[in-house]
Amino acid sequence: MSKKLKIALPKGSLQDSTVELFRKAGYNIYVSSRGYRPTSDDDDLELFLIRAQEIGRYVNDGFIDCGITGRDWIYENRADVEVLTDLQYSKATSRPTRWVLVVPEDSPITCAEDLQGKRIATEGVGITERWLQEKGIKAHVEFSWGATEVKVPELVDAIVDITETGSSIKANKLRIVDTLMTSYPQFIANKETMEDEWKRQKLEAMVLMLKGALEARRKVGLKMNLPAAALDGLVEALPSLRRPTISHLAEEGWLAVETVIDESAVRDIIPRLKSLGAEGIIEYPLNKLVY
Amino acid sequence: MSKKLKIALPKGSLQDSTVELFRKAGYNIYVSSRGYRPTSDDDDLELFLIRAQEIGRYVNDGFIDCGITGRDWIYENRADVEVLTDLQYSKATSRPTRWVLVVPEDSPITCAEDLQGKRIATEGVGITERWLQEKGIKAHVEFSWGATEVKVPELVDAIVDITETGSSIKANKLRIVDTLMTSYPQFIANKETMEDEWKRQKLEAMVLMLKGALEARRKVGLKMNLPAAALDGLVEALPSLRRPTISHLAEEGWLAVETVIDESAVRDIIPRLKSLGAEGIIEYPLNKLVY
Amino acid sequence: MSKKLKIALPKGSLQDSTVELFRKAGYNIYVSSRGYRPTSDDDDLELFLIRAQEIGRYVNDGFIDCGITGRDWIYENRADVEVLTDLQYSKATSRPTRWVLVVPEDSPITCAEDLQGKRIATEGVGITERWLQEKGIKAHVEFSWGATEVKVPELVDAIVDITETGSSIKANKLRIVDTLMTSYPQFIANKETMEDEWKRQKLEAMVLMLKGALEARRKVGLKMNLPAAALDGLVEALPSLRRPTISHLAEEGWLAVETVIDESAVRDIIPRLKSLGAEGIIEYPLNKLVY
Amino acid sequence: MSKKLKIALPKGSLQDSTVELFRKAGYNIYVSSRGYRPTSDDDDLELFLIRAQEIGRYVNDGFIDCGITGRDWIYENRADVEVLTDLQYSKATSRPTRWVLVVPEDSPITCAEDLQGKRIATEGVGITERWLQEKGIKAHVEFSWGATEVKVPELVDAIVDITETGSSIKANKLRIVDTLMTSYPQFIANKETMEDEWKRQKLEAMVLMLKGALEARRKVGLKMNLPAAALDGLVEALPSLRRPTISHLAEEGWLAVETVIDESAVRDIIPRLKSLGAEGIIEYPLNKLVY
Amino acid sequence: MSKKLKIALPKGSLQDSTVELFRKAGYNIYVSSRGYRPTSDDDDLELFLIRAQEIGRYVNDGFIDCGITGRDWIYENRADVEVLTDLQYSKATSRPTRWVLVVPEDSPITCAEDLQGKRIATEGVGITERWLQEKGIKAHVEFSWGATEVKVPELVDAIVDITETGSSIKANKLRIVDTLMTSYPQFIANKETMEDEWKRQKLEAMVLMLKGALEARRKVGLKMNLPAAALDGLVEALPSLRRPTISHLAEEGWLAVETVIDESAVRDIIPRLKSLGAEGIIEYPLNKLVY
Amino acid sequence: MSKKLKIALPKGSLQDSTVELFRKAGYNIYVSSRGYRPTSDDDDLELFLIRAQEIGRYVNDGFIDCGITGRDWIYENRADVEVLTDLQYSKATSRPTRWVLVVPEDSPITCAEDLQGKRIATEGVGITERWLQEKGIKAHVEFSWGATEVKVPELVDAIVDITETGSSIKANKLRIVDTLMTSYPQFIANKETMEDEWKRQKLEAMVLMLKGALEARRKVGLKMNLPAAALDGLVEALPSLRRPTISHLAEEGWLAVETVIDESAVRDIIPRLKSLGAEGIIEYPLNKLVY
Repeated sequence: MSKKLKIALPKGSLQDSTVELFRKAGYNIYVSSRGYRPTSDDDDLELFLIRAQEIGRYVNDGFIDCGITGRDWIYENRADVEVLTDLQYSKATSRPTRWVLVVPEDSPITCAEDLQGKRIATEGVGITERWLQEKGIKAHVEFSWGATEVKVPELVDAIVDITETGSSIKANKLRIVDTLMTSYPQFIANKETMEDEWKRQKLEAMVLMLKGALEARRKVGLKMNLPAAALDGLVEALPSLRRPTISHLAEEGWLAVETVIDESAVRDIIPRLKSLGAEGIIEYPLNKLVY
Repeated sequence: MSKKLKIALPKGSLQDSTVELFRKAGYNIYVSSRGYRPTSDDDDLELFLIRAQEIGRYVNDGFIDCGITGRDWIYENRADVEVLTDLQYSKATSRPTRWVLVVPEDSPITCAEDLQGKRIATEGVGITERWLQEKGIKAHVEFSWGATEVKVPELVDAIVDITETGSSIKANKLRIVDTLMTSYPQFIANKETMEDEWKRQKLEAMVLMLKGALEARRKVGLKMNLPAAALDGLVEALPSLRRPTISHLAEEGWLAVETVIDESAVRDIIPRLKSLGAEGIIEYPLNKLVY
Repeated sequence: MSKKLKIALPKGSLQDSTVELFRKAGYNIYVSSRGYRPTSDDDDLELFLIRAQEIGRYVNDGFIDCGITGRDWIYENRADVEVLTDLQYSKATSRPTRWVLVVPEDSPITCAEDLQGKRIATEGVGITERWLQEKGIKAHVEFSWGATEVKVPELVDAIVDITETGSSIKANKLRIVDTLMTSYPQFIANKETMEDEWKRQKLEAMVLMLKGALEARRKVGLKMNLPAAALDGLVEALPSLRRPTISHLAEEGWLAVETVIDESAVRDIIPRLKSLGAEGIIEYPLNKLVY
Repeated sequence: MSKKLKIALPKGSLQDSTVELFRKAGYNIYVSSRGYRPTSDDDDLELFLIRAQEIGRYVNDGFIDCGITGRDWIYENRADVEVLTDLQYSKATSRPTRWVLVVPEDSPITCAEDLQGKRIATEGVGITERWLQEKGIKAHVEFSWGATEVKVPELVDAIVDITETGSSIKANKLRIVDTLMTSYPQFIANKETMEDEWKRQKLEAMVLMLKGALEARRKVGLKMNLPAAALDGLVEALPSLRRPTISHLAEEGWLAVETVIDESAVRDIIPRLKSLGAEGIIEYPLNKLVY
Repeated sequence: MSKKLKIALPKGSLQDSTVELFRKAGYNIYVSSRGYRPTSDDDDLELFLIRAQEIGRYVNDGFIDCGITGRDWIYENRADVEVLTDLQYSKATSRPTRWVLVVPEDSPITCAEDLQGKRIATEGVGITERWLQEKGIKAHVEFSWGATEVKVPELVDAIVDITETGSSIKANKLRIVDTLMTSYPQFIANKETMEDEWKRQKLEAMVLMLKGALEARRKVGLKMNLPAAALDGLVEALPSLRRPTISHLAEEGWLAVETVIDESAVRDIIPRLKSLGAEGIIEYPLNKLVY
Repeated sequence: MSKKLKIALPKGSLQDSTVELFRKAGYNIYVSSRGYRPTSDDDDLELFLIRAQEIGRYVNDGFIDCGITGRDWIYENRADVEVLTDLQYSKATSRPTRWVLVVPEDSPITCAEDLQGKRIATEGVGITERWLQEKGIKAHVEFSWGATEVKVPELVDAIVDITETGSSIKANKLRIVDTLMTSYPQFIANKETMEDEWKRQKLEAMVLMLKGALEARRKVGLKMNLPAAALDGLVEALPSLRRPTISHLAEEGWLAVETVIDESAVRDIIPRLKSLGAEGIIEYPLNKLVY
């Protein structure tokens, strides 16, 4: 049997966007509806779908070479792994998740120090206990299997929960007291794995492609024809058009200018290009962008 | 504020069938799509939706008076509570769930004793450790956040998982080695709660109604007209028609016979009733049945 | 062509529950997915699906004999029609709808009088103007085609809108200042239609059946066997068991007792019946109930 | 292995309603999403899901004991089987299907005789050829795998197709020229099967239960209290109340009257019962009705 | 608080395609499922979701700076606004909607003049009355809340309704007599808004981007390699390739030709390009196209 | 009426992907939900939706000029037609379908020869009979309307069925004994049609576009800037970059390199390009690719 790189993808809420990111990076991953072991069109990979909570642990122990999981669960597991790159998937998840201390709107608790001697429920017992310890606070922390928000104030005094927008917290008439940590997905590897030359090179290529695919999401290609005389004005006026590709056209006195810019800047830049004399401005989509 | 009975319903897979059972028993429960605190049309109740895994713990501690959860999680939590009644909800869930020791089809492990020194992943760490202890086996048991089936054999040697039909196990090419325990939903109460007269009576009425609703699911009403002369033959031939209600009709020589029987027996009994002379045999549905 | 009763059903939010109510009352109505003219299994009926807002107008003018619509729109249209019966469809809609005066949470408007000289948007221009007139307030009322809630405070100072639970109002950070009227569905008829003997009798039968179907929704049948000696205690203890049907059983000393009670009372009554000696208590569903 | 009755249910459009009918008759049939062999809660049965087109053939040949299929396919297959009972499932399918000769709206073909020498496409080659033969018409009949309606007039001159309402025919701008046969589901058995005493009795019980379930769909139970004096008037006025069950109530001078009537007659009968003095009229649903 | 441009988007059938068009133009708009006030990634914008019927009125009155609505409703409201550009969204809606006079198939009404003294129902009372007035016809026009098609001929003699394809009209067995007006979405602004320099420039940039996004929908990019000798033939043969961008390749005697053409013309042009000697013809998608 | 090319598309499982392929090739086809005759934006085409089983027959007979169907059904029908091109639609269907001989897992049949004297059911009677004949085997072959897999072993000894992955066969506990033929979609034409100059040219253009669209699915465009000195190394190292387009940039010493490569090769090639000194590597999607 040939050499394999064992890679863990997070089962659950991040699963679909992770598979989609890999597809855009050039790795097609097939998840069957029933079993848990995905396959791919890259024979070098052996894939696992594992809860994000556990990936750090198994990568740390070397059962698995590398994986995608959240910075929070790596910390919760005290996993000693190599972080290859941060990955901010999409507009929806580019917002980092936050671990927050939450109490009922009318709770007397207004800061971390008020937790002294209180009961706290959370999925992140380690995150919470280490944060309390750093602050020198003693409190009872119990593991919560979910539906954590319903527990205050009858069952516990406060909870530590994950949120992106805070909207669910408001809907439950709760209040955020403090933020314990922020998190986002990371591509991590076992430290011994990195010493294997074949695996290291494989991982570096994957990082390049994943970043190339992520980069392309926020960028678009732009090309236009420009009177040669207008070029200096263009570069001066729009320094954000970093290092455009310029070629001479068959038509005397005209240049073809091509570049890549942030999609979010297009609506400001196209009107200015037009006023500088650009013609036939085309914006087109990218699959990947590797500088 | 008036007196309340705090009751926990299991959030998740049992949630819908639990709410439906209460509705059939006469208690309408309203679960909002967003928040976690349900309401009901019985002002005596204060409702909580909590993971089945935690209900036993909170009832044991007295934060909540009573609740519906599985026998397994009561045991896992070592909850010292009063079991009011077993509840077998529907045909779908009347099959008890089982906690089973599972290994890959081609694993060398064939009995509990083979686990000595091995690694086991499970959501039920307590159930597994106490079972190993009873058998005098030493093994490493680690908590699994889910997707447990994918872990053998790369990450652990065996898993302890919940199954109803075993079909998911076969689909993953795994094999059941042993059964640790069987489980089904139970209605439990805190022991001090039972000493409060008002709460105890409230709970007894609820048990009566829940059992009445469950009973009615498996039964139907049957009524027919019968020549008086045929009555003895009927009772002799069909002892399963336990204590039918018999009344005289205005028409001389005819009786109205009415009873309740198992729905599953109807297809055998109706043809026999007909051959005994019964006429106008009607089967009708029941909402509740309280003996 | 034979004589027909022209009847209008409300197209839109009440449509499905109206068709369902008629089905339960014994009239099967078939609504095609495409065209608007429904058919039924009652050849005496000619059916129209019309917006609730317009039914009162067309019944008033005699283009249509009768219809189901809301009390509010009858009033809005100043329709001079005969109200045959109120209809409160289901638990979901048994709560009457309310027309409320609504302003932003932080608006200075706190009572009707504060509307003097202000701008109000509403779908019910007539309802609003007549209410203002009764209070002697002058304000500009403009017709709103919908999405009324978004209009305050930029486009108008206040709105008059329909609500059942008020939850949409809170979600939009609005505040209810006053209630203009409450409404529920009514079965109405043109006044000349009522002078046609055939149509009047047809309408009376429909009212009987519609009310019989509605009544059955909130009631269940109850029967049980009772020792004859316990009967007096039963009637005394449970006056809500109004006029039960009592028959003698073949078995000496036992009575069969049968009655109809509110579904919501069952959970209280069955435990008491049992303590009074009742046996084989059966609750069964009703299709219709006509006293 | 114990004795089994092999029974074929029609896979496809009739499948769900057939399974539902059996469930109502007391036989729970479980169809898995993947494989084709259903199971049931009656160990006497061995079930097959087979296309309706083929059931007659396999029952005729004795590979299968009995089955549910359409009268049309029995005829198409020239299957020589015993028809146990007709089954008209539900309001939706109680309308028999028809095999009709169809041409484009503007076709010159207006009667069967115009088919002489023409091309006809149909799924029912046997039905069509035998019908043409009886009429002495010669035409080319070719088997159609489906989408038959699209074939006229480019590919064939006429088609013979199945229809219930004719609406699909109109939507395709086609016209019905003639009806070849009407069809509805039938419960059939192999002739040798009927000579096996155990199988014959089993089949007779199934027929009784299936008919009892079908009968109950169109009927409801009705009960009421009636002044004894009104009884004669009742029976005279409403002969459709065939043979009601009458019992004396404990209350002097009142009778309890109970009967079963067509659901479609209820809306006419209840108003008349009320005018005859009936009180507490209850309509309730039936599961089965066996006279 | 910074300066804002208040913009109204049409709530309802055009909503999704409007939001999508803005997204393609570079403006991401977020519509929450509950409340009505959308947000965007452009802090200069303050967004409103309002019925298309009302947008013209509020823009005219200056409560809102600008908006997207139909030409018909601008006319209905007699809104005196500046039309910035027509917008024809997608293939689905590039077909303009029409306001048509509709009667039953068998109505005696065959032209506008036949309406004299008749009753007409419509959502567009203003459109209809002004059209009648221009023709010198007197008729009763009443406001219809919807389901207008069901009203003829029982409730009114004719209706004026919106249609795109006329298919719903045919399905209801109605006939189009005349067309009152055609309509399509327009981007409009308040006249005073246009005098504010900041707002005017903002609006001009938006128009540029919206048109650039719409243009790109119907166009594709095309590039190919061409022997230099073939260029003249190409331009002569395909004048539709307006002003292609031509650059010299490193390979002697070959040119790179790049242009933008109508997507619908591609299937005709590519075969001709190939026969002229073009190689490596690539068609690629565009996001925006600004000439 | 103008000249038309009659083309048949396969109704059923291939329908959506065929319509999608035509759309990508530049032909928009509109399939209505009800009727069967599709329309398109190419007035030269007259479209038919016909079962794949029948298309070969109708093209052979000249009722239809051309069509898309499977190689298997062309063979089954012994259709003598011109194959214009093979079409392998998408990753999902690029896997050819296979006709396989299948028996129960525990059947004694292990090779074709064991079929002597046995019963076989299949949808492809012709395929099966011709295959048996070639092997000199005599067996009874009967037409199966579907659900073929359920028929072994009770109704027949073996089946011949279509499969792509074989997974449904395993799920039914069946075993593949032999493969009769493999199949994939083909674009075919009537032989006389090809002699009509207008039709032949039309078909050639369609083939060009369909292949251009298919080709583009598996390819992407790639462009980058490259130091001129690195060009030789690039071509040597990556011969798969067949004939890149190279142009000089305005910036001295840099080239723009552009090419098209297999999407599946991108993840290997981009890392190597980067190590060769390429900058600003962009991957972009293609709509069509015609060499």
